[in-house]
Amino acid sequence: MTDFTATRAAFHIPHGVIYLDGNSLGPLPKAAGKRVAEVVEQEWGEQLIKGWNTCGWMASPSKVGNRIGRLIGAEPGHVVIGDTLSIKVYQALASALQMRPDRKVILSDSGNFPSDLYMAEGLIGLLGGDYELRVVAPENVASAITEEIAVTMITEVDYRTGRKHDMAALTKRAHAVGAITVWDLAHSAGALPVDLLGVGADFAVGCTYKYLNGGPGAPAFIYVAPRHADHVQPALSGWLGHESPFTFDLGYRPGSGIERMRVGTPPIVQMATLEAALDVWDDVDLQDIRTRSIELSERFIAGVEALCPELVLASPRDPSQRGSQVSFKFENGYAAMQALIAHNVIGDFRAPDVMRFGFTPLYLNEDDIDAAVKILGRVINDRLWDTPEFKARKAVT
Amino acid sequence: MTDFTATRAAFHIPHGVIYLDGNSLGPLPKAAGKRVAEVVEQEWGEQLIKGWNTCGWMASPSKVGNRIGRLIGAEPGHVVIGDTLSIKVYQALASALQMRPDRKVILSDSGNFPSDLYMAEGLIGLLGGDYELRVVAPENVASAITEEIAVTMITEVDYRTGRKHDMAALTKRAHAVGAITVWDLAHSAGALPVDLLGVGADFAVGCTYKYLNGGPGAPAFIYVAPRHADHVQPALSGWLGHESPFTFDLGYRPGSGIERMRVGTPPIVQMATLEAALDVWDDVDLQDIRTRSIELSERFIAGVEALCPELVLASPRDPSQRGSQVSFKFENGYAAMQALIAHNVIGDFRAPDVMRFGFTPLYLNEDDIDAAVKILGRVINDRLWDTPEFKARKAVT
Repeated sequence: MTDFTATRAAFHIPHGVIYLDGNSLGPLPKAAGKRVAEVVEQEWGEQLIKGWNTCGWMASPSKVGNRIGRLIGAEPGHVVIGDTLSIKVYQALASALQMRPDRKVILSDSGNFPSDLYMAEGLIGLLGGDYELRVVAPENVASAITEEIAVTMITEVDYRTGRKHDMAALTKRAHAVGAITVWDLAHSAGALPVDLLGVGADFAVGCTYKYLNGGPGAPAFIYVAPRHADHVQPALSGWLGHESPFTFDLGYRPGSGIERMRVGTPPIVQMATLEAALDVWDDVDLQDIRTRSIELSERFIAGVEALCPELVLASPRDPSQRGSQVSFKFENGYAAMQALIAHNVIGDFRAPDVMRFGFTPLYLNEDDIDAAVKILGRVINDRLWDTPEFKARKAVT
Repeated sequence: MTDFTATRAAFHIPHGVIYLDGNSLGPLPKAAGKRVAEVVEQEWGEQLIKGWNTCGWMASPSKVGNRIGRLIGAEPGHVVIGDTLSIKVYQALASALQMRPDRKVILSDSGNFPSDLYMAEGLIGLLGGDYELRVVAPENVASAITEEIAVTMITEVDYRTGRKHDMAALTKRAHAVGAITVWDLAHSAGALPVDLLGVGADFAVGCTYKYLNGGPGAPAFIYVAPRHADHVQPALSGWLGHESPFTFDLGYRPGSGIERMRVGTPPIVQMATLEAALDVWDDVDLQDIRTRSIELSERFIAGVEALCPELVLASPRDPSQRGSQVSFKFENGYAAMQALIAHNVIGDFRAPDVMRFGFTPLYLNEDDIDAAVKILGRVINDRLWDTPEFKARKAVT
């Protein structure tokens, strides 16, 4: 049984803050500062170039990958860390397309995170010819998976609404028509149980700075199914994915299995905070996370709906159809979120009118939820958002 | 006039170590630990998601890019930070190829860093058709620039020999035949004056963990010439290169100028050490660096040749033809480098037989060079390398 008192104590949450935005950027694990100081001062400072060997830097992308693999249902040796999620999406898509050279359609949905769509657009723009990115409504994905589809590129949990796709069913359907699946786990990893091996996913990618709490700009991960890992053709064929990087051959030969999905030099300093964050997960059971996440989000929905009739639930009402976030539509959502943040309840806003709240049992409990509901009630019902300051939209939110 | 006593004092070099490998991984700037602690504990810890605005994280890739731009002869607004160098090579190449759709040949040379060649190989493998990566000997690059060439992809300074290409002459020649130039400045940025705008380079890329001392895995940079910046088509079209990332449009529209070369979320923690490293450069004149680099490397060559007749200079003898490193060929170079490192003189080895030494005036002076020569003399002449331990090659060097 996961000890949520212990996990809560592992994070630094600023005094008075209720943090409902761990689905965007997880908070600071208390151990991260010490770990990054060690990497900077002792490892880099004292070992210099030798750190690549003596401190295990060179092997860290697979080592950290395995720690994440455990959280997403991957066997050891099938996840590797590096780059950003957008790059990993591109990498997975490029390899997947090459596995179905006779097909030209990438299928995605309008609830996917835009960067995934943009990366696909860039890729097919480069490929030219008759490639197509086909974007359907989330609820129409299943019926759109036909024998035309080369690759499905789907984010399991919708970043805006929290709507959760049925990964097992869609993967099965894709395989039935011979399509390859690329799953984006940005809002899944650390949020709910994922069983990549069980569902037979072909590729999966995700980021580590949301529910995994790796820190701003922490690197992404990529998973390749065991049955494909030794066959996929890396389009982003960097030297650290080479079979023998340090022989400095002029020609590329892909490394063994998942190693070939490495590209360039790994971000060692950035990985220090990620490693500290992953320590917290060592004794966590994802089923416990899921149970608590549903308890907390149901409590939030009930509280908000009781207090704020103006807010309209934008997430599925059935918790089994949601990830670990809850969104409400509100016409003045931007200003309301600014006001809420000014009152120390931090969620975020997604255009055009979505107030988004993430539920992260590692460091949130019922008292936080009740307090957040109460403050949100005041912000909405006392129109605390209705000031020029809160209504003035900034470039970045 | 650059104050090299002050710059030397800005770095932590472990006691007794002579560090001749700053061309591979620069040493720790003393201020980096404090800066990264601030970013982790104060910015991330206290500001959480708000840090993207309140701490300037979102704008940091261009802000840091401008600081690097100053060191490579770029006007403000034409360099941006992100990803790894291999990714940036791919990004530049993909955009460059799209500017010459009627041509199919990427020209490079066998002295280029293999990852650049691998990335080109991956890109043309994906493009299919009749694309070709043509790799010639470094001394044959000029004559190989013909009207067939779409893009030249050349690293100014050879990672193995230190041989320096004539960037101005090759760029001029490329333009004369209508080719686009992609320059890799991995061994140039911070090593010698670079004048991208002056020579009219089209694209340039580089890394920040060598002469710029940004730390292990510090992000790369990319430059796009002002005349192209608003026209290039990004193949790696990520959300942070979008004209308006936070409107979350389903379709990609490239951002203004160099902003479109951003891809995903920037590595904020990793950039903290890079920023501390760049502070050291604020009062440095690259011409002073070049003058000192030549003094130090000439002194090293003279010393080594006087003491160690077995070592054969693998770098151009004329310092104007070299970057800021010197290489010697020695049959037992691997073991000799291990022995040298065991005696606290750190250089590195590049297969098959190259002992490589970097000269970095920010923190090296004549006393270091003289001491290094003396110890290298003992290692070679007393055959200190001739032990089973030093001869046993490790996987990573």
